[in-house]
Amino acid sequence: MAEINRRIVLAARPSGLPKGSDFRLEEAPIPRPEDGEVLLRIQYLSLDPYMRGRMNDAKSYAKPTAIGEVMEGGTVATVLESRHPDFKPGDTVLSYSGWQSHAVAKPAELRKLNPKEAPVTTALGVLGMPGFTAYVGLRNIGQPKAGETVVVAAATGPVGSAVGQIAKLQGARAIGIAGGKAKCDFALQELGFDLVLDHGAKDFAAQLAAACPKGIDVYFENVGGHVWDAVFPLLNNFARIPVCGLIAQYNADGDAFPGPDRFPVVMRQVLSKRLNLRGFIQFDFAEQRPDFIRDMAQWIRDGRIKYREDIVDGLENAPQAFIGLLQGKNFGKLIVRVAGS
Amino acid sequence: MAEINRRIVLAARPSGLPKGSDFRLEEAPIPRPEDGEVLLRIQYLSLDPYMRGRMNDAKSYAKPTAIGEVMEGGTVATVLESRHPDFKPGDTVLSYSGWQSHAVAKPAELRKLNPKEAPVTTALGVLGMPGFTAYVGLRNIGQPKAGETVVVAAATGPVGSAVGQIAKLQGARAIGIAGGKAKCDFALQELGFDLVLDHGAKDFAAQLAAACPKGIDVYFENVGGHVWDAVFPLLNNFARIPVCGLIAQYNADGDAFPGPDRFPVVMRQVLSKRLNLRGFIQFDFAEQRPDFIRDMAQWIRDGRIKYREDIVDGLENAPQAFIGLLQGKNFGKLIVRVAGS
Repeated sequence: MAEINRRIVLAARPSGLPKGSDFRLEEAPIPRPEDGEVLLRIQYLSLDPYMRGRMNDAKSYAKPTAIGEVMEGGTVATVLESRHPDFKPGDTVLSYSGWQSHAVAKPAELRKLNPKEAPVTTALGVLGMPGFTAYVGLRNIGQPKAGETVVVAAATGPVGSAVGQIAKLQGARAIGIAGGKAKCDFALQELGFDLVLDHGAKDFAAQLAAACPKGIDVYFENVGGHVWDAVFPLLNNFARIPVCGLIAQYNADGDAFPGPDRFPVVMRQVLSKRLNLRGFIQFDFAEQRPDFIRDMAQWIRDGRIKYREDIVDGLENAPQAFIGLLQGKNFGKLIVRVAGS
Repeated sequence: MAEINRRIVLAARPSGLPKGSDFRLEEAPIPRPEDGEVLLRIQYLSLDPYMRGRMNDAKSYAKPTAIGEVMEGGTVATVLESRHPDFKPGDTVLSYSGWQSHAVAKPAELRKLNPKEAPVTTALGVLGMPGFTAYVGLRNIGQPKAGETVVVAAATGPVGSAVGQIAKLQGARAIGIAGGKAKCDFALQELGFDLVLDHGAKDFAAQLAAACPKGIDVYFENVGGHVWDAVFPLLNNFARIPVCGLIAQYNADGDAFPGPDRFPVVMRQVLSKRLNLRGFIQFDFAEQRPDFIRDMAQWIRDGRIKYREDIVDGLENAPQAFIGLLQGKNFGKLIVRVAGS
């Protein structure tokens, strides 16, 4: 093993869509664990839309990444060296070690994974943060009832695919939205959505209206943009709108969006239709994680929830893969294989 | 008693702020009750902002009033003639008889009032729909906790004044917003708000920021407009925004509002601050009315909730009073005395 840590740091704050030069691959000495810590070798790095927010210098629910700092991210790692009695070399753990090959971590930041129970990459996707986002957003806010219509975009992505499948398990009708024929076909045929529409179609809004003859009861908002505009007029009285992401506007600079001002129109409908628009971050519901692991693991074992992963090889390819993610180029859960396991 | 029914009908759909000519005072024969019905003489008519919505030909939670139809509204009335065993002449009832002097009603549409228990006009205000709006909006959506900051506009109006006082009873800090010194003084000194700001002040937004050093946890939205813009940046993580009215935009024609588009900025904060924006109409919570009557009547008896009524004499003055209401000219609950009781 070469005694270097390869890591990708934030080189510059992006304006709009990030460029390759906004990231920098660096080499650094491998950090040494102190008493009570472990040294990890990263196997897999999760790439997720929220990371775009960390690249901005704006107040949000989490601190921005500083220029020159390692990009943040969830990881699956192997313990190389342990100075804590609960961990031994060879253990596989979920950590939040970021875009790098090695890291030191404290046990409180780690969760042990059992590779015999489920492929370890699922801890970054369907059994991890994105799956949990779908689970808690539906359970606490969306609350679909049998016969209701649930709409979600990015339907083959890790959040959208779980939203649609969980909604189906609860007896709702699941309408997916995705970009391009391949994704639409996959969501319809493999994931079991009732109908999947291509948001790039010229008559997308009309297609969505036709697909939802009884209106929309739950819109799981993870994209924003023109999908919202098509969904909005179809919302039923008492519709619930869990908001977990707005990928379509993450690259927007500043606070100046051209008119017309949609906000008064939205508020008028919030009132007259009694809409419930509620933002959430999955960790707000951390106490529900045991329920999630129990339910989701069972659903996967029963073949009732399927998932797809897109695995990219090599840490050095993380920036381009991430830029593609923001453009909707990934198909399923996007993961970087940092080191052979 | 003259044998005519005086009534005010919708003469034309207003564009913007209604004009006197949008209403017409008519005379008609007094209707006759059939078996199982009662004939009412209206004593008091409630004027409320929601009536502006009924004047538009737009889909909403209630049907628009047709041209030539009597304007809708809550009323307190005396039974003149009864063809139902549960009612006798002289009974006082709450009805929804609209802008007229007489009406026929079915018992299911009536609630008997006991003039010895409370002034009958309170059934249109603090013990009626506006008070109930405040009660259910806070109980089900706002949910203020001790020490939190609650902001409400139209602070001397029937909804705002109840919101502020109930919030205080629950240990929250209540910041009121009103128009003009007289209202601000009244809300501060008589209603017991912790602080009341004049939304007409040039530095209103800065005053509000200074008044809420710990941010805003509950914004009870009953006005919209520029008050929202001042409130929005001050909202705390997990702030709740019950939306029961938007009087500032009721007179807007159509759906075209000039830019910039505030909606993407609002959604960004909905997500990062996990805001909960939820519209409601008081009748959505009809099953909580007994709790409301019990609690509110007790609070009034204990002197813990105060209220103010503006009583205008004469049905013929209802249109001008209503137009004034939409301009914020009323002080407390606006009521028209239709007939001497």
